[in-house]
Amino acid sequence: MRTSPTELVNAVFDIAATRGLDAASIREVANAAGVSIGAVQHHFGTKDDLYTFAFEQLVERVRSRVARIDPADPLNERLVIALSQLLPLDGQREHEARVMLSFAARAATSEALASIQRRTLTELRDELTDQLSADGIDMPDVRATLLLAAVDGLTLDAVSSGMYTTAELSAALRTQIRLVLGNA
Amino acid sequence: MRTSPTELVNAVFDIAATRGLDAASIREVANAAGVSIGAVQHHFGTKDDLYTFAFEQLVERVRSRVARIDPADPLNERLVIALSQLLPLDGQREHEARVMLSFAARAATSEALASIQRRTLTELRDELTDQLSADGIDMPDVRATLLLAAVDGLTLDAVSSGMYTTAELSAALRTQIRLVLGNA
Repeated sequence: MRTSPTELVNAVFDIAATRGLDAASIREVANAAGVSIGAVQHHFGTKDDLYTFAFEQLVERVRSRVARIDPADPLNERLVIALSQLLPLDGQREHEARVMLSFAARAATSEALASIQRRTLTELRDELTDQLSADGIDMPDVRATLLLAAVDGLTLDAVSSGMYTTAELSAALRTQIRLVLGNA
Repeated sequence: MRTSPTELVNAVFDIAATRGLDAASIREVANAAGVSIGAVQHHFGTKDDLYTFAFEQLVERVRSRVARIDPADPLNERLVIALSQLLPLDGQREHEARVMLSFAARAATSEALASIQRRTLTELRDELTDQLSADGIDMPDVRATLLLAAVDGLTLDAVSSGMYTTAELSAALRTQIRLVLGNA
């Protein structure tokens, strides 16, 4: 039976979100996608190839949503909309956040994944820095680093503990943006 | 050969920091500690028992350092000292941060680990809230959530990408504390 790389990547994401990335072996991905191991290997020679491609796809999905923001909106609103894409505020983003966390943890011991993570974080931070800078905000680079860290940390804390409601996460993000923009 | 739970836990940490938590099977932990599989099972019946105990030990180590802070220091300094314990600013903390990230990622799909994470984050957040509150800071709970999120996010971003120097992490932490204390 034929299969597409996208179907296989979705199988990786579903397994990673529910059982952790390490459960996403070639065999389990083949099972979940309803294809043979050979069909997976037709697209991806090794598990590392599959993971690298899957992580790229995941980053691309999140970034395409962030890119749709209207540059005419005030800075504060643009930041809320963009950074909300990275928080587990609904089923889809909760699923993505779980997958993202499993890949980030794996990146700590995989240079191929770390390099994707480095490029992604650098691009996001540079875009945030540009936006802060265009509004004349002082020390835009450190503030951009802290916006990104707060969102990633809220997501990590929420997904690993289940202790935050979506209302609490939204309120915390808005407060962080307010503090970073210098309105304490 | 006899072994102690602490030696086994240290073996789990070393494997988790270098190869990821999933590489820390009972067999690999026994190998790393130089004992038989039976010697590990004498202390821990299952891998989940071992992981739960190890995560508790890890949290305890970090918290014991945080607890040594002098309450006579100014709030700003107390926060820098306490939260610096959670950042990968030297070899020991880098090692701990890698282990912590691997357990946090696993907690996303393990209720036993999520419950330890929830208790730990709640205790840390409550302590931070009390300290902010005692200094008359407005909205101490959200600000405490954001201090914790920034540190956890900086650690996640640093360990998963290798893109931040320790000087950048320290400077970012100090800026976050300054912003949260309302001196923007």
